[in-house]
Amino acid sequence: MEIFGDKISGNCLKIKYAADYLGLDYTWIDVDITRGESRTDEFLALSPNGQVPVVRLADGRVLSQSNAILRYIAHGTVLLPDELFGQALIDQWLFWEQYNHEPNVAVCRFDMIYRGKRADERDPVKVAKGEKALDLMDRHLESRDYFVCQRLTIADIALLAYTRLAHEGGFQLEGRNALTRWITRCEQDLRIASHHEQNRIASHG
Amino acid sequence: MEIFGDKISGNCLKIKYAADYLGLDYTWIDVDITRGESRTDEFLALSPNGQVPVVRLADGRVLSQSNAILRYIAHGTVLLPDELFGQALIDQWLFWEQYNHEPNVAVCRFDMIYRGKRADERDPVKVAKGEKALDLMDRHLESRDYFVCQRLTIADIALLAYTRLAHEGGFQLEGRNALTRWITRCEQDLRIASHHEQNRIASHG
Repeated sequence: MEIFGDKISGNCLKIKYAADYLGLDYTWIDVDITRGESRTDEFLALSPNGQVPVVRLADGRVLSQSNAILRYIAHGTVLLPDELFGQALIDQWLFWEQYNHEPNVAVCRFDMIYRGKRADERDPVKVAKGEKALDLMDRHLESRDYFVCQRLTIADIALLAYTRLAHEGGFQLEGRNALTRWITRCEQDLRIASHHEQNRIASHG
Repeated sequence: MEIFGDKISGNCLKIKYAADYLGLDYTWIDVDITRGESRTDEFLALSPNGQVPVVRLADGRVLSQSNAILRYIAHGTVLLPDELFGQALIDQWLFWEQYNHEPNVAVCRFDMIYRGKRADERDPVKVAKGEKALDLMDRHLESRDYFVCQRLTIADIALLAYTRLAHEGGFQLEGRNALTRWITRCEQDLRIASHHEQNRIASHG
């Protein structure tokens, strides 16, 4: 499997996190979205929508949309329950992530890091919706260790990717205690660097 | 099954179209979003996100997010193929619909019909993204009768709901010939009123 992605994109990192966790064999092909590499004729021939990530299977078939890819590679693994309603609840969070979370939390981060905006120059509608999304996650996690099952699933991976970077978009994670405990739990499960460490580095230079 | 929804919402109509097509037994419970009925304590207890549609199964379990519901009720039916990669392509379009289509085409429609905006008062970013989404659909359908399979699936139903009402959001369907033929084909499959007829009524008062 080839994964076409940009490691500045949480949507792309989701696929890397899941593939690494499952021990899948893949080749990562860097597509630099800030240099327009997802807008070339060659890339658009692969994926007419011009968005990363995209995966190409060994037989040439191509799939796009991060959460559709997650669901495909997680099928039959520990990251997706076999039971139908459990899968439906995971789908519920995957769609919620792309509609209520990513367009607000991730876009504020992109505006600050890649477009040079200050926190007070962010779109106030996106800020309010992002805060609301983080609050809803925090409340949901007050009585649960993970979003759907008693273990890590692709719902957690999809939500983790941009939530652990939310401070880069001007959102505070401090005080959302259930949420920060869940981030640390998922980072340990996935063996990726702690967001606390990233946060410290970001704060101090 | 109880479906909590508002028939002005394409996201809710998706569930009705699929449930009617499959002959499912359900009770429709009207939730008037323009009167704040999805923001009451009672509704938020059912669905903390405060969005319609929501379904409640006979055993009390609750599911939200229109495309997660579609996928759940279509499992094992003609509206969702059994084959894994076919399901993945359907997921790809379901996520694309919620990320690239609905926030633009449906929101422009909402602004014009329910917030009283004129076409030239719509958000220009959403107009451009909506036009691009409709163009991408039209190109995809030039060589296909349906989005994924050789027959109607939930990918078509999810995309149909707001596309057939796109003119109400100031978008032109005329000239997008593959798209309009597909709309008519799906409307005939689902036995719902033609968008041409709705368009005619809208144009003439």
